[in-house]
This record gives sequence, structure tokens and C-alpha cells, in this order.
Amino acid sequence: MINPRNIVLMVLLLFGNNSRAAEKVLIDTDPGVDDALAVVFAFSSPDLEVVGLTTIFGNVETDLATRNALRLLDLVDRDVPVAEGAVKPLYSKKLPTPDFVHGRDGFGEINLPESERQPLAESAAEFIVRTVMASPGEITLVVLGPMTNIALALALEPDLASHVKRVVAMGGVLQVMGNVSPVASANILGDAHAADIVLGTDWNVILVPADTTRQVRVTDQWLAHVRANGGKQGRFIHDISRFYRDFYRQGGVTDGFYNHDPTAMAFVVDQSLFKTEQRAIRVVTDGISIGDVVAAKEMHYQVAGPWFGIPLATITTEVDADGVMQMLEAALIER
Amino acid sequence: MINPRNIVLMVLLLFGNNSRAAEKVLIDTDPGVDDALAVVFAFSSPDLEVVGLTTIFGNVETDLATRNALRLLDLVDRDVPVAEGAVKPLYSKKLPTPDFVHGRDGFGEINLPESERQPLAESAAEFIVRTVMASPGEITLVVLGPMTNIALALALEPDLASHVKRVVAMGGVLQVMGNVSPVASANILGDAHAADIVLGTDWNVILVPADTTRQVRVTDQWLAHVRANGGKQGRFIHDISRFYRDFYRQGGVTDGFYNHDPTAMAFVVDQSLFKTEQRAIRVVTDGISIGDVVAAKEMHYQVAGPWFGIPLATITTEVDADGVMQMLEAALIER
Repeated sequence: MINPRNIVLMVLLLFGNNSRAAEKVLIDTDPGVDDALAVVFAFSSPDLEVVGLTTIFGNVETDLATRNALRLLDLVDRDVPVAEGAVKPLYSKKLPTPDFVHGRDGFGEINLPESERQPLAESAAEFIVRTVMASPGEITLVVLGPMTNIALALALEPDLASHVKRVVAMGGVLQVMGNVSPVASANILGDAHAADIVLGTDWNVILVPADTTRQVRVTDQWLAHVRANGGKQGRFIHDISRFYRDFYRQGGVTDGFYNHDPTAMAFVVDQSLFKTEQRAIRVVTDGISIGDVVAAKEMHYQVAGPWFGIPLATITTEVDADGVMQMLEAALIER
Repeated sequence: MINPRNIVLMVLLLFGNNSRAAEKVLIDTDPGVDDALAVVFAFSSPDLEVVGLTTIFGNVETDLATRNALRLLDLVDRDVPVAEGAVKPLYSKKLPTPDFVHGRDGFGEINLPESERQPLAESAAEFIVRTVMASPGEITLVVLGPMTNIALALALEPDLASHVKRVVAMGGVLQVMGNVSPVASANILGDAHAADIVLGTDWNVILVPADTTRQVRVTDQWLAHVRANGGKQGRFIHDISRFYRDFYRQGGVTDGFYNHDPTAMAFVVDQSLFKTEQRAIRVVTDGISIGDVVAAKEMHYQVAGPWFGIPLATITTEVDADGVMQMLEAALIER
């Protein structure tokens, strides 16, 4: 028997950062200010080929997430499919929408005009299945919100997991406090059951938790630089970020706001900026610790119990924050 | 505000037994001996128009359920779409398959040849969505196994619930003991989360629990009569039932085996054979009582707590067992 960890290492060696061909990413997103930065960055990066956007509730309701995804296509002047996703979690109740974080329009209340573009008729889960199965081993799913659409896609197509290249998901807290409960972050508590499914599936899944993304800060200086030199996209990123920045400032985060989703996108481009560990992950789905990401080391999960049979996932532990911000800046300003 | 119960009563008056136009049924099934009898009956009844079959794990694995559904089309010489469903529950672990009840082939080990028919390329959930949305208000979902496909369809299409005519589901125990735990029946414990979703959705859903279906018995005499006078289908029903009958006999049920799924199908044809109550239903999804169907009376659910906001469903409480068996016999022998 080949040790699964060795397979993961072999895959990383074969397909990792030393390959500079553009990686095909399908982005599941709830834009959202930091989602918008991640998506605009993805379209701007020569290392990424965005094959589609799927939408989900989270920072905003699903309907608004779809409209905002279409607005982002207007901004970057690119034409890729947008498929609307689930309007509520797989099983649990939907959380209230945090319009005090991202604004009522999800974009810091700058009130962009509606796009004239239309989403696909098919659902996000169906689009994910169709796209992945048409290009086996080529598609990376970048998951920037609650993981409902991904869990639904896994349910629709039992062979999905073996046909995805990798899954890079932003969410969860390990050592730091959560933003929606002491033990839970919004992307995980948004659909704890879906997160438990996605993170416990036997595929190459990488979780970029808030412990990592809070190390990466978006400062006023960086925003001013991007505004001055990033053209229309730079101005957009600057403008939507003010409301979000003010939310963090009121919470005492004054030295730049947390750069959650773009940091996960940066992992796709250059994972050498990150340190990682292999863990078997379960997510608590009930009780007062619902949404808690519990990451067991290999030695713990091979005995019978809740971790029995749960494969190892990758979790980021450290990041070169300057490296991430320089990567974003280079992509946004080079265009 | 109109009382939801009154709306249900109005709908029953409008579309109930006094209408004799064939009712369009989409059958979600895990054949399975009693499933086979229900499906063959549905094709034989002039009061039902079978628009498709979707398959699910339960009595057998999903793959075998699909192959058996196709075999049933060979038997009845009818051509309707078959869509393969989920291979495991929405969230929980899959139960072992009870091949000691239905035989390793699901049909009492008579080992029918494979059908040359093929299932659709689309999944059960997608087929359900497409079929229901194309005929708003016309399709009755008859759910004879774990409810995973139905929950997935609800997730894929938020407007599904308002476009379905009604949902008639077999499963659950109230007063009687469960067959897979003291409080749980196989169809519910097979996917407790899905059952909680389906039975808690605001649509016209009727649960036919084992309390009802155990009142209806298939005797050796009835089987001999159907075998002698029901042609090819009668012989098939007789032959597949022997293994199933022997399982019940070993468990002390000697005066005919329980007629679960066909009784639910009989409700679709003539609900005047049943007494019903309106209840707000939750399904326990964890702990030692997982799979328990807890049916609250209206007076209990309007306070905050687990029943808050759960709409009233219909649950059958009594049945004219002779009437059901005569209905089945008439349909099987008239053809």
C-alpha cells in the first residue's frame, strides 16, 4: 500500500509551484469585499485561468452574490460562466447576513450599477460537476464561502473527488478566536455539515484558516498605491474596502484589515509562501461548539472513533505575508 | 391570515379522491421487494401515470436499485426515464445494506437477467427538478426509500417545494418499534438529515409510517391468487416475495408480511382509505435516538424551540387494510 501522504507529496512535486502553466480555477464565492479582491486578482494573475464563478450565501445572500459576481465580470471585462448556488445550508439554519461588515450591497455600499450579464440556468453544483468531469485532474476549486455547493456537487457526482485537481478553501480557526463564535468562523459555521463533508473527503484539499489569513493585512498605504496605479480595478478595490476597513477599525484592528480570501487565492499561485501540516479534519455539527474545526494529527485518527477513516487534509499554518501582498500588487498593477 | 390547515383541506377537496384523472407520480425507490410491488402496481393502476423512476440506496445499494428499476421496466414493458440517485446520505454514514431482508439481488434472489435499458445521464435530483418544474403543480413525488434525492432536489431548486403537487413518503415509526432501532425505521435512519428536511419543508407532504403499513398484510393466499391470475407480473410478485416472507416469518410475523411501500402508493390513489392527522414533524439527527420521527401537535409547535416555524405535515394513522389489498389485486389482475 502506498502511504496517502506520499501520494500527496508526489502530486505536489509534479504539479506544484515549479509548474508555471496557468492553473484552471473554478471560484465559489460570496462577494463580499475580500472575495472581490480575490476574484479580481485571479483574473489579473497570469498564473491562473478562471473557468467560472459559482455563488453562495455568506457575506451576502446568494442572489446578491450572483449579481456581484456578474458585476465583477463587467469590471474585469471578461466573459466566464457564473452559476448561482444554494440559498441555504445543506442542513442547518442559515446565519443572518453580516451587512455591517461588507455593506448592504456587499461592496462597501458604493452601489455599483447592475450588470446586464446573466447567470447560467444550471445550478452551481451542476456547473461544478460538469466542468470538473469535462477536464479530469485539471480543475482547482477555490472555495471562498460556506461549502454548500461543493458538498452538493460531491453528492451529485460520486466520482467528482477523484476528478478534481485540488480544493483550496478559506475558513476555520484553530488557535485564534472565531468571528462568529469563540470556536467558529463564518465560512464554516455558515454550513458546518458541508464543511465536515468537504474537509473529510478523500481528495487534495487545503484549508487556509483565519489563523493564516489574519497574518496578512491590507493597509491604507497598499490601497492608496493600488488606487493610484491599478487603473479601474485599483480604484474599485480601494473604494469597496473603506467600509470593510472601518468595520475592522471599530473592532480594534487598526494596522490593516485581514486579507482572508485573497490569501487563499495566493496559495493556489505560490504555495511556497506557506507552511503547511497534514491533519485529519472533522467539523462539529451540533452543540455549543458547532462550526469548530478540529484537526487531528495522524497519530490520533487511526483508532476507531470520530476520526476513523478520515483522510489527511492540508492545513496552512504560516504565511509570508509580504510575499502575498506583493503578489497581489504585481498582478493588479501590471495589467 | 389563512390557516395552513384550511389550505390543506381545500387542496384535498379540490384534488382528492373525487378527481379520477390519472395522477402523475415520480417514484423514488430502492427496489427491494415491497418497492417492486408498489412500482408494478403503479404502472398497472389506471389512476396513476408514472412519469419516471429515481433510485436510492436502502434495501439495496444505489447501483443495484438502478439496475432493478430498469428490470421492472422490462417486466411491465413500459418506457419511462430512470435516473440514478445518491449513493450515500446527505451527511450521516450509510447504513449497511439489509440483504437478509430482500436478498442479495434485492428481488428475493430470483436472479433476473440484467436489463439492456440505460438510466439517464443526469442525477435523480436533477431529474426531479427538471420534471417538476416542467409541470408545475402536477407531479406527486412518491418516496419509498431514504429521502436523500428529495433533499438534494430541494437544495438545487429553491422553488421546487411550491411546484410539487404533493409528496407521499413511506417511513418512520410513532407508536410501534422501529426495524433498525427502537425509535427508527430504515427509510428515516437511512438519511435522518434528509428526512428532517423533507418532512419539515412547507409543501403538501404526507408521511405513511410503519404504524400504518404494518396494518396491511400480504398473505400466502393473496400471493397465490395474484400468481395464478396476474400473468407475468403476478408470477414475478409471487416469486420475489418468498424470501421476504421467510424473513418476516423468522421474526415471528406469520400472518402475512408487512406491505410497506404499496400502502403508500395506495394512498396516492385513494386517500379515503386512510385516516390522517396534521402534525409538525422533526427528525432526530444525532444521539441514540437518531432517526426518531417526532410529530408535534399544532398546539406545541408555535412556541420558540425546535418546532418553531415547522409547517404542518400530514401523517396517516389508520388504514382500511382490506381496501388496500383489494385495490392492488384489482390493478394487478385486470391487466
